[in-house]
Amino acid sequence: VSPDPQQLAGVLETVVYGDDIEAMVGFYGTALRLRRVGDIDELGASFRLPSGGMLLVFDAVQAARPGRTVPSHGTDGAGHVAFSVPPGTLDAWRRRLVDHGLEIEQDVEWGNASRSVYLRDPAGNSVELVDGDPWPA
Amino acid sequence: VSPDPQQLAGVLETVVYGDDIEAMVGFYGTALRLRRVGDIDELGASFRLPSGGMLLVFDAVQAARPGRTVPSHGTDGAGHVAFSVPPGTLDAWRRRLVDHGLEIEQDVEWGNASRSVYLRDPAGNSVELVDGDPWPA
Repeated sequence: VSPDPQQLAGVLETVVYGDDIEAMVGFYGTALRLRRVGDIDELGASFRLPSGGMLLVFDAVQAARPGRTVPSHGTDGAGHVAFSVPPGTLDAWRRRLVDHGLEIEQDVEWGNASRSVYLRDPAGNSVELVDGDPWPA
Repeated sequence: VSPDPQQLAGVLETVVYGDDIEAMVGFYGTALRLRRVGDIDELGASFRLPSGGMLLVFDAVQAARPGRTVPSHGTDGAGHVAFSVPPGTLDAWRRRLVDHGLEIEQDVEWGNASRSVYLRDPAGNSVELVDGDPWPA
């Protein structure tokens, strides 16, 4: 698809915050198998999705620090991110998560042949794995 | 690219929170020209990117309410989202934002032919528009 110059093309960076970066890297890098790019540092870690998008796992205190080289940000409370899984793999993903000792919070059939599995990351963020697309086109 | 069944494919949903949904819809829908799907309700509004990803603009109090049909979430403080712009359009986007009365917080050349413009949404979230890709492959 040729990009429409009048439209933003996509989301490049999505952020979740947590204060235990090692636990967060274990969750996103090991359990969810995201591919880390760059080093783990006091700010956190960054992961590249096959789609090209980035998931940033940041320490909110470090990210909110004034005087960074980029604008500051950082939140308290449970955020949310949903990942698309390759078609037909949600059951395998669910098994893998349970095998990692993770608890499935909810499993939802959307009624348009899409389905989501929800769990929490170590910081309490709501993480959703989706097969198909429950949203209007 | 054929999806690797062992890998999550991409980010489907990214969320930003704000308590003035009308102002948020003005920012994301009108100034950033994201395409809204579905209705605006007490929970917020949802936007589809050309890439297929969704940006959800939610009222944190409503999203964090217990007893929703899906797991609750909601944050305080400034979150962050970065959007990719079509190649070569960042100057046009910057002009459009300024024409909308929005203030550019920072304009950063990354040194690998990518460049970012930062601004704040009505809730204070840090919003970044990126031409190119500043991250390692």
